[in-house]
Formats: sequence, structure tokens, C-alpha cells
Amino acid sequence: MKQVFTYNLPLKLEYGGELPKVEITFHTYGEMSSTRDNVVWVFHALTANSDASDWWNGLIGEGKQFDPSKYFIVCANILGSCYGTTGPLSIDPSTRTPYYHRFPFITIRDMVKAHRLLAKYLGVNKILFGLGGSMGGYQLLEWAAEESERFENIVLLATSAAESAWGIAIHTTQRMAIEADPDWKENHPQAGKKGLMTARGIGMLTYRNYETYVRTQRDEDGRIDGHSAESYIRYQGEKLARRFNAMSYYTLTKAMDSHHLGRERGSIESVLAQIQSNVLIIGISSDLLCPLAEQEFLARHIPHATYQLIDSSYGHDGFLIEFRAISDAISAHYRS
Amino acid sequence: MKQVFTYNLPLKLEYGGELPKVEITFHTYGEMSSTRDNVVWVFHALTANSDASDWWNGLIGEGKQFDPSKYFIVCANILGSCYGTTGPLSIDPSTRTPYYHRFPFITIRDMVKAHRLLAKYLGVNKILFGLGGSMGGYQLLEWAAEESERFENIVLLATSAAESAWGIAIHTTQRMAIEADPDWKENHPQAGKKGLMTARGIGMLTYRNYETYVRTQRDEDGRIDGHSAESYIRYQGEKLARRFNAMSYYTLTKAMDSHHLGRERGSIESVLAQIQSNVLIIGISSDLLCPLAEQEFLARHIPHATYQLIDSSYGHDGFLIEFRAISDAISAHYRS
Repeated sequence: MKQVFTYNLPLKLEYGGELPKVEITFHTYGEMSSTRDNVVWVFHALTANSDASDWWNGLIGEGKQFDPSKYFIVCANILGSCYGTTGPLSIDPSTRTPYYHRFPFITIRDMVKAHRLLAKYLGVNKILFGLGGSMGGYQLLEWAAEESERFENIVLLATSAAESAWGIAIHTTQRMAIEADPDWKENHPQAGKKGLMTARGIGMLTYRNYETYVRTQRDEDGRIDGHSAESYIRYQGEKLARRFNAMSYYTLTKAMDSHHLGRERGSIESVLAQIQSNVLIIGISSDLLCPLAEQEFLARHIPHATYQLIDSSYGHDGFLIEFRAISDAISAHYRS
Repeated sequence: MKQVFTYNLPLKLEYGGELPKVEITFHTYGEMSSTRDNVVWVFHALTANSDASDWWNGLIGEGKQFDPSKYFIVCANILGSCYGTTGPLSIDPSTRTPYYHRFPFITIRDMVKAHRLLAKYLGVNKILFGLGGSMGGYQLLEWAAEESERFENIVLLATSAAESAWGIAIHTTQRMAIEADPDWKENHPQAGKKGLMTARGIGMLTYRNYETYVRTQRDEDGRIDGHSAESYIRYQGEKLARRFNAMSYYTLTKAMDSHHLGRERGSIESVLAQIQSNVLIIGISSDLLCPLAEQEFLARHIPHATYQLIDSSYGHDGFLIEFRAISDAISAHYRS
């Protein structure tokens, strides 16, 4: 069920400034038990939305690992996105026009601040399971760092304790692509669309890897031009540009780059050491973007953590594809 | 010594059309022996030039593996580039203005055609050593495929028998970045400069890897903004844009994508099987762009080939950095 929660007070932002009001679009599946002990909170990544039963349909739904008949499952669209939560295309109440380029710099911590407002509104206290892959994991870790006892269990996939220099380098090329777009500076929803296509193309490289491209996009003939891999990248760019916007993309990659659990809290290690939850950390063997070293680091420093490697050639995207292996890992870990 | 060779007849191109005349800028180091048996031909990669003693200074020069006192070393700037060989910024004799966007589609085979004209002009017959890394290896392999006995010895580094679907996907994002640039379609040397910066930024990702970025560009503090990795990528983009142009970049990435030893020659395997040279194939363990699978393939199908893995964290760039290991591998192989 899709709903909207409106928070009519200002939300102060970590980098400075505030949003005068915040709308949060979220989905819930199932019902909260009378003892409120069946809450599952799902955190989505960069370009996804709050309908987790759609993009994570192998994990969430009837007969799946997280079945709405057992759990009350929540997923909220993140701040800065464009799927119903306040972002660059939303109306700025102070001007009654969309923010566009005036949308402020937000961080993962600001997203978590919004999630916490929603939790309060929903009457959610303890969360039985927090689930987050990639940037979803960034939010989950930030929340756990702020409230070490909020989550009973945490499942992290293909994620990290801070954005890596590698991730920042990648996001930089994506923003450069958007900045080079002729109409990027303009104030309309299509601004930067061509740049966004390139940014998504770059993303598609890092979500997969050499092996997947060779397996699925290789031309058997020795053609000079018109290669499948080229069509694929261009198509993926166009596809995203139809459903997303460059301002949200720019805003959210900056937010990812700001991700650092240790900021103004001491070291990353000491923050991780305070997490009280039962944590399952899942890494995908061929992940180029958040390589295993990142998940191994989490596993070393979170006290009650188990690390599970999934052998898959799907790269970073594995967390959105390897449903069977993910379900098995979750079942095995939390049954024992 | 830098020289220019002008070929005043039309050069027919593989994809169709022709260049009415071709200028080739090249460097030679040392002198050809009276028996012409000491020729070393070096093939450069995407954005390099003909001064191999500069960009490969650890391998070419006095006291180095390829010492001009022993060898006659040749390196020619490739067709389509901007370091003195005919490319998009050259004057089209038929209009007396630069080609710019009218520069034709060229392939690796066209580059080799130009190299062969230069060899003839220089009186080079048998080549003692052909050396090529990355796209330099593409040219070397194409030449060896056309003249199976031209090269006595061949050293291939971080290269492949055909551009991979992965390489094509990467180059596509680079071209998309250039295409999105506001002045890309214009006819002047700076056209597409902002896009070129992004393209180079993407290149810098694929030439290195996660590990190198984390080791060299990681910020120790948890800063929200102004990350080293971002400055590094932007700086590298600007640096290339000052010395290169977007039209050459676009042209050369298309040429790379056309690379396929088997085109109109039967299978790649059968082409490799005909190479008569003593071949040393060097792979860099952390190479993201031309992974080891590509070099292993070459080693499996070239009859007299030895495969040498260099353990290095420098990724694809290793072929421009790991001079000691490369020299050792060459010495060891050709001494025995």
C-alpha cells in the first residue's frame, strides 16, 4: 500500500540549511502485530522507489522470505529522490515553484532523519529486520549508528561503512557527464537529460563487470560498427532518463559520497563496535563497485556479524538478482 | 628523432572512403644496422604519441631493455590521433580546411596500413621486436595477422584479439559524454572539450581499480564534500583536454571497438594460429579493462607464445608503470 506522510515542520540538514517541510512517500505490506514486533524496514538504493515488493520481488511477497502475512514491511522513498519524497522537483513552499537547482545538499544522515520521522508517525519502535543493499545499506548503517538498539536484526548487502575513494571517483565522472550537458543549468525537469543518460551508462558498467558484458553483449561476427554492447548501454541510459531526473541523480550521488559512519562520531571502527544487532553481511563475489573488502571490513568491526559470500558473476547488481542465494543465506543465519 | 613522412597518394579505408593523403609523424632512436636486423617497432595506445622514449622511458633508452645503441627503434603516431599524424584536426586537401567532423571512420587495420607505408619508406623489412600494450597491441596483432612473418619477436601487454563487449560498453559511455557536450557538433579544435574531460575521467577509472583509488585518494577525515578522488578525476580530465581533442578521442575509441582479428579472415583462433613469431604475452593481474582472460586467450591460440602474469595493483596502467617487471619478463623470455 502506497501512502504519503507529510511532515510540516522544518527538517534541519547536516550540511546546513533546512527543508521547510518534507513529504515522504512509502509503501507498507502486511500489518503491524499488536506487540509491534514484526516490523521489517527495507532501504532502497540510488534510483529505486518505495515499492520494494516490485524491485525486490524475490525477497518480499507472498511465500517469499519476507511475507506480508507474517511481517509489517515498510519501505520509504529517500529524500532527494523523485518517487514521491521531497526532492529537487518538489515544490519549495517558500517560493511555490520547484526547487530544481536550489535543492540543498543532503547527506545519508538527512535521509535517515526523514526515515525516523516516518517510524515515529507509524508507531514503529523496535525494528525486527533492517534490510539494505548498496546505498540502502548506507542508510541502514547510519540509522544503526544513531540508534544502536533500534534494529534486532540487520541484513546488509553489497554495501560499505563509508563511500570509497573508488565510488567517489565513479560518481564524479557521472556528475561531470551531467554538468557537461547543454541544458543542465536550466530550471526544468528535463534539464541534464543527456548527461543523465551517460551517468546511467557509467553506472551500468560498475553494476556489472567484464564477464557479464562478454557473456550477454558479445557480437559473434567481427562487425566494424553497431555493436550490441553499445546499443545496450545507450538503451539503459535512455530508459533511466525516462523515469528519473538529473537533479535527483546529482543530489543522490553527492549524498552517497558524503557517506562516512565516523564523521563527528570518532572512528568508523568505534561506531561499528557499538552496533548491538544480529548482523548478516552479504557480499557478491564479482562486485566491482562495493568490493568484498568493504563487506569484510564491516564484518570485522561489527560485534555480532556474520559474513556470507555469494558466488555470482552478476557483480554489484547481484543484490537485486540473486534472490535464491540471498534468501538461503538469511534463512540459514536467522534459523540458527 | 622526430620526423614526418608524407604519403601523397590516397589511403583507402576499410570502412569505405579514403584519405587523399597521409602524414605520419614518427620517432626513431638509434640506427638501423647494415643487415637491417635490429629493428624494434613500438605501437602506442589511445592518447600517447610517437615519443616512446618519453612515455615508455623505463623500457626504451640508454641502459634500458631497448637501448638505441643496439636497436633501431621506431614509433609512429597513429592515424586519427593529434600528434602529427593525419587526424580530425588535419587539413583536408580537398577543402583546405580541417576535417573536424568530416574525418572518416577508421579502423585498427587502417592504422596498420599507414604503419606499413612507413616501414616501406624506412626500408624496414623484418622487424626484430614488435612491442604493443593495450591499443598498441591491437595494431601489432593486426599487422602480424596480415604479415605472419614480419615480426621475429612480439611482446604484447594488456591487450586482446578483439575489443571485448566490456571495452565497447566503456567506450560507449565515453562517446555519450562527448556527444552530450553543448558544442560537440561544432567545427573547431575545442569542440566537445567538456565531454572529453568526462571521457578521460571514465578512462581513469578503467585504467586503475578500487584498490589504487583507495590507496591513493582516500580522505582520512569523514568530510562531507571536497573529496580527493573527485579532485583527482576532474584534474585528470582537464589535463587530457589540454593536450588532446574530442574528435580524435571519438575516432580512436570507434577504431578500438572495430578491433577484431577475425573479420573477413575466418575465426580469430585461426588467425592467431598463423602467427609465426616468438610471442611473449604479458598480463597485469589487476587489469580491469583488458582482463587476464583476454591475454590467456591469446596465449592459448598463438603457436609460439609464452604467457607471463605480472602481479601488480596498478591495473591496466601497469603496462606503463611496471617497467622492472616487464623488462625482467622480456629478458627472461628472450634469453632462453
